Amino acid sequence: LIEFWKDTLHFAVKAWEMGRSDPRKVIFAIKMGLALSIVSLLIFWKNSFHDIDIAQYSIWAILTVIVMFEFSIGGTFIKGFNRGLGTLVAGILAFCFAELSLLAGNLEEVVIVISVFIVGFFASYLKLYPTMKPYEYGFRVFVLTYCILMVAGNRTREYREAVATRLVLIAVGATVCLVVNICIYPIWSGEDLHNLVVKNFKEVATSLEGCVNEYLKSIEYERIPSKILAYQASDDPMYKGYRTVVESKIQEETLLGFAIWEPPHGRYRMFNYPWKNYVKVSGALRHCAFMVMALHGCLLSEIQAPVEKRRVFRTELRRVGAEGAKVLRELGKKIEKMENLGPGDVLKDVHVAAEILQKKIDQRSYLLVNSESWEIGRRPREQVDLENVSDSRDSHDMNLGFKSLSETVLDLRSVSAAWTPSATLSASSEGMFRNQPSWPFDGGVSKEENCTTYESASALSLATFASLLIEFVARLQNVVDSFEELAEKAKFREPILNTPPTKKKSRIWCFMFTM
Amino acid sequence: LIEFWKDTLHFAVKAWEMGRSDPRKVIFAIKMGLALSIVSLLIFWKNSFHDIDIAQYSIWAILTVIVMFEFSIGGTFIKGFNRGLGTLVAGILAFCFAELSLLAGNLEEVVIVISVFIVGFFASYLKLYPTMKPYEYGFRVFVLTYCILMVAGNRTREYREAVATRLVLIAVGATVCLVVNICIYPIWSGEDLHNLVVKNFKEVATSLEGCVNEYLKSIEYERIPSKILAYQASDDPMYKGYRTVVESKIQEETLLGFAIWEPPHGRYRMFNYPWKNYVKVSGALRHCAFMVMALHGCLLSEIQAPVEKRRVFRTELRRVGAEGAKVLRELGKKIEKMENLGPGDVLKDVHVAAEILQKKIDQRSYLLVNSESWEIGRRPREQVDLENVSDSRDSHDMNLGFKSLSETVLDLRSVSAAWTPSATLSASSEGMFRNQPSWPFDGGVSKEENCTTYESASALSLATFASLLIEFVARLQNVVDSFEELAEKAKFREPILNTPPTKKKSRIWCFMFTM
Repeated sequence: LIEFWKDTLHFAVKAWEMGRSDPRKVIFAIKMGLALSIVSLLIFWKNSFHDIDIAQYSIWAILTVIVMFEFSIGGTFIKGFNRGLGTLVAGILAFCFAELSLLAGNLEEVVIVISVFIVGFFASYLKLYPTMKPYEYGFRVFVLTYCILMVAGNRTREYREAVATRLVLIAVGATVCLVVNICIYPIWSGEDLHNLVVKNFKEVATSLEGCVNEYLKSIEYERIPSKILAYQASDDPMYKGYRTVVESKIQEETLLGFAIWEPPHGRYRMFNYPWKNYVKVSGALRHCAFMVMALHGCLLSEIQAPVEKRRVFRTELRRVGAEGAKVLRELGKKIEKMENLGPGDVLKDVHVAAEILQKKIDQRSYLLVNSESWEIGRRPREQVDLENVSDSRDSHDMNLGFKSLSETVLDLRSVSAAWTPSATLSASSEGMFRNQPSWPFDGGVSKEENCTTYESASALSLATFASLLIEFVARLQNVVDSFEELAEKAKFREPILNTPPTKKKSRIWCFMFTM
Repeated sequence: LIEFWKDTLHFAVKAWEMGRSDPRKVIFAIKMGLALSIVSLLIFWKNSFHDIDIAQYSIWAILTVIVMFEFSIGGTFIKGFNRGLGTLVAGILAFCFAELSLLAGNLEEVVIVISVFIVGFFASYLKLYPTMKPYEYGFRVFVLTYCILMVAGNRTREYREAVATRLVLIAVGATVCLVVNICIYPIWSGEDLHNLVVKNFKEVATSLEGCVNEYLKSIEYERIPSKILAYQASDDPMYKGYRTVVESKIQEETLLGFAIWEPPHGRYRMFNYPWKNYVKVSGALRHCAFMVMALHGCLLSEIQAPVEKRRVFRTELRRVGAEGAKVLRELGKKIEKMENLGPGDVLKDVHVAAEILQKKIDQRSYLLVNSESWEIGRRPREQVDLENVSDSRDSHDMNLGFKSLSETVLDLRSVSAAWTPSATLSASSEGMFRNQPSWPFDGGVSKEENCTTYESASALSLATFASLLIEFVARLQNVVDSFEELAEKAKFREPILNTPPTKKKSRIWCFMFTM
């Protein structure tokens, strides 16, 4: 029992914290309580109106409020529409069948039961139709209303009156719902969608930076959390970032479904506001996030590049990561402020960084491959003394590269001639090869054994990481394109350029203006 | 109007086809109609029972059926549980407040309105609590029931009777629901979950094969479908395969939520059947699917490896792809049949293939890097005449590789000495470098220009593809592990080994048995 009390207390504390962190939830609950209290006043309407006892039917208004009242305005509109349409169709159908059942005389009851079966069948069947999914609720209301009308009408024999009173009370309930929900601190799905997209940009940026930094720090996972392996939620910050973005898809679509129902409001004063473009931008971002996921995959991989090799490309990799994250944060901020991109290309810096990385890789690509097993000969280890290559020197080699390219051409034809003829020697040993008894993968092979087998792939793993990072940069273009489409359609305002641009950026801008 | 008729007709045809392709949907609709008809018979119970007019309250049974009747048994149980608990708590609360309001005398109405507000507030607030999400429905029922009881009780002043009758009728409705749903062609969520997991394995296998084959055919996307860029549904078969798997996560979790409520049935005759492990296997599979996604990313990439280089690794890449897909299909089939893995390692073949690919890459890694820009010297193009290297020779070079490794060691120290000292020459040109006027990324850079800039990365792209493929193979281990956990917990039966294994497999098996 003490356990139970502890749990309850814990739950209460958590619930309290939820309210503190997101006061909108408290406000929503208060609004719901208020709307309910207002309609419940109908119970006490003791005087009958045109011989109709309002109190008796007050439950219809209450029911409407309970099913219609949603967190966001858009959601309330959709539910209201469902409720209205469902009730109307049900009312018409009930009226028709009621007349029919009265005509049927003795068979009245049979007609009613059959009509209930037909209505139940069609409503259940059609709600399984894929495009009808959002209206599932409407179908339920429709069947419910139909049945209630039949029951009530059957008892009082006044179908017409039953339908009319209920429609009026549903209208009252719906009005109370909308008035309370819109007039008191409205919660808009559009606003939520906007914030979600902005948040997604930040998440991906954090995740990207995290991945690149961790990779360069060569922090290996001692044991990969099994939750990541099964793609479940985990606290790993890098993993959480992109996972949130990938997972947010459903949420975005729900919010989009609500947002398109919302009237122009607040900062979104425009009919047919391009909410779809928000989702599109987020989709393009997600396409980038998959690359971050692949980068993280390199971190999770059992095949890891040696630390010293990573160190060679450290500056370049980090710069691409940082610039990429900067672009994402910049775009996120622009969306947040609903501003257009300024003059100049946001992607400029990151493209420069990617270019530098690319050049560096081109020049140092012998580090990325296991040259020891080339048939043309092994490069002695000592000469590529990675540990001693200082960073400052690394970053300056690049310029040199362009020159040395044409200067240090050496004819290696004689060297490589060594393998070409020998390749044809053992031309029919494929079968043999497969049956080699010393095969490293035996039946009960353990994970550790796999590791050693794949070790030779380690250097290539660095190439993969760099290549994925460059592909990430390439995909940024797509994000920028869809951002521009959104900015145009949503008529984002021009940015205010009153403060002089600072730091690195200014240099590039100066350069551009003097061009 | 003709348009409208056409649309209606089109819709009707589609709806008919839906029924033909999945008859369970028709059956569900019939069951729903039947259950509704049965409870609607209560309307005609004209005789009162213990002075209670059953017909008047029949709507409660109908309401219960409408809200409780779900597609699957598990869903019905959950809804039933929600319904029951919500009603019970509401009944108790209503009873307490009713007594209180009677005691309040003149303030009766105030007490009722305040109680409605309190109930509405807490129910709305708590249903926003994250872990309460699945019970959202229960909260609605709770509020509804509370309000209805207050209204009815307030009118008749017989709260106790009102609560009792309603509980009985809800029980009747629930019983009808369960009997109809379980006895007539039951639809189990567990079965659906099982099939979904099996289908996912097939989807990933197809997607993997598709990616590898398309990559080797060097079929480039003329224009990448914008839907893929925004991660929307598209008809592209490779894309569809892994996307389905990634997207199916929510569906799996819903099904899992239902499945754990279902009693032992059919092939799953066990209490606490490990449904969670199905989701875990699927999660591990998803972890693999992300690698397929990354492979597909290589296809989508603007940076494409040249055809002739891909051709060199063709046999090996295809083999890894085919073996990987085979393993996935095998596992899918095992889950479908609920069989254990046979003796021997399913991963053996794919590991062998990956090993061969790895060795080949090691030997030919000079093809994967742009050796022309190495500072240590350019390798003349002619000698690596890729087009002429026939495939049959390619696959035999490997054996040779092991030998030549130790034989053809050449000291390149003198060659590489050319760059090491020169690297220190321009030690302070970083700033200069950044302001180079011939920078390829200018303001209004178009996508085509980006392509040419990134062209030098093309060879590395092949390395990335191979590396990702090997990582995919490494991740298969994780899938097999979670499969084995599932097989153990779910007590999969041993496979029947009556037919002798055929083709390639037999060779390896023979080899194993003679070991």
